[in-house]
Amino acid sequence: MSKLSTATKRLLVGRPFRSDKLGHTLLPKRIALPVFASDAMSSVAYAPEEIFLVLSVAGISAYAYTPWIGLAVCVVMAVVVASYRQNVHAYPSGGGDYEVATTNLGPNAGLTVGSALMVDYVLTVAVSISSAASNIGSAVPFVATHKVLFAVAAIVLLTAINLRGIRESGTAFALPTYAFIVGMFVMLGWGLFRIYVLGDDVRAVSSGFVLNAEDQHLYGIAFAFLIARAFSSGCAALTGVEAISNGVPAFQKPKSRNAATTLLLLGTFAIVLLMGIIILAQKIGIVYAHNPAEQLVGAPEGYQQKTLIAQLAEAVFAGFPIGFYFIAIVTALILVLAANTAFNGFPVLGSILAQDRYLPRQLHTRGDRLAFSNGILFLSGAAIAFVVVFGAEVTKLIQLYIVGVFVSFVLSQTGMIRHWTRHLKSETDPAQRRRMHRSRVINSIGLAMTGAVLIIVLLTKFAAGAWIAIVAMIAIFLVMKSIRRHYDNVAAELDEQEWDGVLPSRTHSIVLVSKLHMPTMRALAYARATRPDTLEAVTVNVDEPDTRALVREWERSDVTVPLKVIESPYREITKPILDYVRRVRRDSPRDVVTVFIPEYVVGHWWEQILHNQSALRLKSRLLFQPGVMVTSVPWQLSSSEKARERARRVEPSAAPGATRRGFDAPEGK
Amino acid sequence: MSKLSTATKRLLVGRPFRSDKLGHTLLPKRIALPVFASDAMSSVAYAPEEIFLVLSVAGISAYAYTPWIGLAVCVVMAVVVASYRQNVHAYPSGGGDYEVATTNLGPNAGLTVGSALMVDYVLTVAVSISSAASNIGSAVPFVATHKVLFAVAAIVLLTAINLRGIRESGTAFALPTYAFIVGMFVMLGWGLFRIYVLGDDVRAVSSGFVLNAEDQHLYGIAFAFLIARAFSSGCAALTGVEAISNGVPAFQKPKSRNAATTLLLLGTFAIVLLMGIIILAQKIGIVYAHNPAEQLVGAPEGYQQKTLIAQLAEAVFAGFPIGFYFIAIVTALILVLAANTAFNGFPVLGSILAQDRYLPRQLHTRGDRLAFSNGILFLSGAAIAFVVVFGAEVTKLIQLYIVGVFVSFVLSQTGMIRHWTRHLKSETDPAQRRRMHRSRVINSIGLAMTGAVLIIVLLTKFAAGAWIAIVAMIAIFLVMKSIRRHYDNVAAELDEQEWDGVLPSRTHSIVLVSKLHMPTMRALAYARATRPDTLEAVTVNVDEPDTRALVREWERSDVTVPLKVIESPYREITKPILDYVRRVRRDSPRDVVTVFIPEYVVGHWWEQILHNQSALRLKSRLLFQPGVMVTSVPWQLSSSEKARERARRVEPSAAPGATRRGFDAPEGK
Repeated sequence: MSKLSTATKRLLVGRPFRSDKLGHTLLPKRIALPVFASDAMSSVAYAPEEIFLVLSVAGISAYAYTPWIGLAVCVVMAVVVASYRQNVHAYPSGGGDYEVATTNLGPNAGLTVGSALMVDYVLTVAVSISSAASNIGSAVPFVATHKVLFAVAAIVLLTAINLRGIRESGTAFALPTYAFIVGMFVMLGWGLFRIYVLGDDVRAVSSGFVLNAEDQHLYGIAFAFLIARAFSSGCAALTGVEAISNGVPAFQKPKSRNAATTLLLLGTFAIVLLMGIIILAQKIGIVYAHNPAEQLVGAPEGYQQKTLIAQLAEAVFAGFPIGFYFIAIVTALILVLAANTAFNGFPVLGSILAQDRYLPRQLHTRGDRLAFSNGILFLSGAAIAFVVVFGAEVTKLIQLYIVGVFVSFVLSQTGMIRHWTRHLKSETDPAQRRRMHRSRVINSIGLAMTGAVLIIVLLTKFAAGAWIAIVAMIAIFLVMKSIRRHYDNVAAELDEQEWDGVLPSRTHSIVLVSKLHMPTMRALAYARATRPDTLEAVTVNVDEPDTRALVREWERSDVTVPLKVIESPYREITKPILDYVRRVRRDSPRDVVTVFIPEYVVGHWWEQILHNQSALRLKSRLLFQPGVMVTSVPWQLSSSEKARERARRVEPSAAPGATRRGFDAPEGK
Repeated sequence: MSKLSTATKRLLVGRPFRSDKLGHTLLPKRIALPVFASDAMSSVAYAPEEIFLVLSVAGISAYAYTPWIGLAVCVVMAVVVASYRQNVHAYPSGGGDYEVATTNLGPNAGLTVGSALMVDYVLTVAVSISSAASNIGSAVPFVATHKVLFAVAAIVLLTAINLRGIRESGTAFALPTYAFIVGMFVMLGWGLFRIYVLGDDVRAVSSGFVLNAEDQHLYGIAFAFLIARAFSSGCAALTGVEAISNGVPAFQKPKSRNAATTLLLLGTFAIVLLMGIIILAQKIGIVYAHNPAEQLVGAPEGYQQKTLIAQLAEAVFAGFPIGFYFIAIVTALILVLAANTAFNGFPVLGSILAQDRYLPRQLHTRGDRLAFSNGILFLSGAAIAFVVVFGAEVTKLIQLYIVGVFVSFVLSQTGMIRHWTRHLKSETDPAQRRRMHRSRVINSIGLAMTGAVLIIVLLTKFAAGAWIAIVAMIAIFLVMKSIRRHYDNVAAELDEQEWDGVLPSRTHSIVLVSKLHMPTMRALAYARATRPDTLEAVTVNVDEPDTRALVREWERSDVTVPLKVIESPYREITKPILDYVRRVRRDSPRDVVTVFIPEYVVGHWWEQILHNQSALRLKSRLLFQPGVMVTSVPWQLSSSEKARERARRVEPSAAPGATRRGFDAPEGK
């Protein structure tokens, strides 16, 4: 990274904050809301639409059920929000559902939540970006006809930005989120005002079309199933509600109270927007078909069905295109933010799972960009795969989406009930007990509700795609389980063995030599500085004339260390040295052998290809020999100087998910 | 590699030969001919065809020139063979044209030859396999319609075989090569016998077609240009002649004489076959069109033009299909052998260039499978690219092919003239001087001839594709040049610096600690065994509770080494340690610092992902610090035991190109 770009970055994002100044970097509610709410809020952009779409199968008359289905979704939303307010108070450490499930239900439940959330993050990206593409497509027809391309490009862009290390900035979140909320309220308010106060006849373009039912004769169980399906799809509005419970540590004090209040605020906004959209959409007669080409009679040739929100904006702001475009833009923006949320949440989840050794250990340490980068690449690769396979169709992707969320809802609520039951056993203060009883009731209602929804979701969506999400969850679960088993086995293996505490009797040092030059001289000097009992230089004879020249030069020089020539019948380097070391060890098994390898240090990867390849292979093979230490004696070539300079200039960069864990300041703090 | 497969391999290819038994592994002439001749011999499979094809543009009357063009090619062939017989005597070390050019014309000329040969090897694979596909396609129509697919599959197969490490076996070469020679002689002989003795009216199928000239009115310069083009294409027959000059060390004694005799034999066979094919083809009236679909009148619907050799075999062996199939099979086989030749020659060339530091050094050492594998992958990737881009059309590929060969011919002959001139200056023995004069005349004729051909080739083929080969040669030249420059710079840098010979005053040892377990205990014991002046254990505080637990355990244990805790404000590992080491160095710059890193050694790559990642990064960063040694103290986990066992069972495997450098025994020796 150049000096200039570092300076620019510092100007843009401020000096990196140190973790011992964590107290200074917490989020006030007005910033926390947008940071954590974009995911949940953005889902009102597609959830109502899906309700209309599913019901369209049974024809226009089924639309009468939309407000009731919307209401049911809102009730679930209210219950879930109420439940999570309990979680936030009881588990303020930011472990979220994973912690609740692990603590109260054991590691397998926790790991199930972890797997579910991982799948969910992938789908959040896929669904949000696909929906963003549809919304932009409603304003820009070119995007509508190239949706997959646009969605993939957007994911690639997000990936690049996150790989580069963007610092989540409160302001960056606040602006689009508040713009979306305000825009939606203005749209809904102005729409209802025009209808009820001005008495305008606000009609959507699609209200003129006749909607043909795909299946005219749905009665009884079949119709109930359709209603249930519409409800399941509508429940997509709940995705993202759990985000705040992972972010409590990022709130200003009193953390839990502020988090709970923010959660309430988020729930209220979501419910109002959801119901508002549904009611207004019905009022202005929007017809939103599952299969527009066949179902819509009276639509013009080549009619592109716009998103529900776009149709609303078009009708409400008729004659005022700025309003329409504004809504399209902020809707797309908040959806992109929601996708970016996954890019931040995924590594945080990975870090928590790594702490419990379900994922490679290096994911746990902050500032390990490489590990985080692999996580980000995995996320975006999987999301792109989903987008391409399902053609960026929100309707198809949503079939996979909410299983994971509700699995973690259910496990989390079950865990909370256990939590309260356990605490009630020891708690004696009546006021406290009353509160706990009340919390347990709330979480029980939450469990009943989310459990029922999970069953409905499984019944209505399993064959339609949910099975894919479930298979993915199981696969991830098994991989993490086996990683943990590996770490446990290693720990057990280390525990079994007893250290006898005896020091090695002698040290036998071997300096590997290919030429008599500075790196070799330094290696010899350093080796001698460690005062070994035996010190010898060793060279492998792969090329007879070269070796003879080396031996002659060695004899002429003032080096006093003896040079031993190892023959290499197959002109290899590694094996003869390994054999020699093995022989030394066999002769005196109580000794420790130190192999000194002079190495060039160069600055560029392509220089690395030209040097040290044999040394690298040899080192990795020597490590398999018990009782052998391998010491690299570096010789820094001048190009390494520049590389060191480069490395020194790079500031510790922003880790994805820093803001939402309370590690970093929002801009302007 | 399993025990079984090692045993099988040993059964098939014999015990690996040791390089100190080189004398026993040399090739007698009868085996050397097929080993080195397949490339040159196989080119008679496509060279005559190309002459007919080019002339077809001017219509059937132009075919009258084919014997004359064939004769011209044969003259060039004879001259080149005579010239190379001089090379073989003067440079018996196997360096071939590269050595001749480097020694007599300087490194740039040598490098030009090296680049030209590298491009040529790629094209040998592409052309030979494409021609093999056409020949098999003449017998099996399915292959003809899927030529690209077949060619790519064949290259992939060859790559796999060579990556696996096949030992070139004399017998494996001898059988198909002699079968080809015998088959061709029988075909030509029987054909001529039928015509001239039995008086049969042997006619090719295509002789019944009328050939429309693509350009009816070619006169003067344009026609001369066409003749020149036909000649250039025919000169493809010369590719591979130089192979023997790279293989002199593999011959039995007297090496040079045997090599020269084999060269003569090869030249004779090639000339006889070339002329025989041309004459017989004309005799039986084969019509071979540049553009069969448009040029051939009277051909049946969907007529697939068979190769010249296939048409010959079809006509000569009419009513005896076994003969036809035999010729098709042996022709394809020798072409595949020719392609395999490149797979063997390419790494040998790489090894020679690496010796002169034009390529990464590790290519020089034998037995470095990894480096050889990269070379093979490069070769096959490039060949596949050419095959796909040019649709496996020999006619198109041949436009690129012979530039490289003739560049190296010309430089080699120029070098030889210099060689003799130089030797003549000091030589006094009249007999010797006479011989040298004669050799110089031969090489001068060779230069004049090959120079003229090169100019003709450049004039007639530059725009048609030769420019691609030239661009590739220049690119390879520049890359090798810059690799050499890098190595030279490093050598110069090492020469500049003077070793002061002063030993470091004290050693300061730092043992990195993350937990107090066996690997740490061993690292501490080993570090103590090196008797440092200062010994301390250091841990990085990335996780407060973990660190506190470690410190407590440390205090309770009987470890006497002090434990220092380094704070890590950004929760990183690498940077705090680097800073600490830098501080230690600053405080006492004359000390040498040794950092001991306990490492787990595991057996599988996926286990490696789960361990040592931080250690790996830290090691590579520490090497950039002057005055710091990095010592890995391995702790072998039980899975590493199996990996060690696996590694021990693997025999040193056959290096590609071993046979042709005289490193290995042909089978049965």
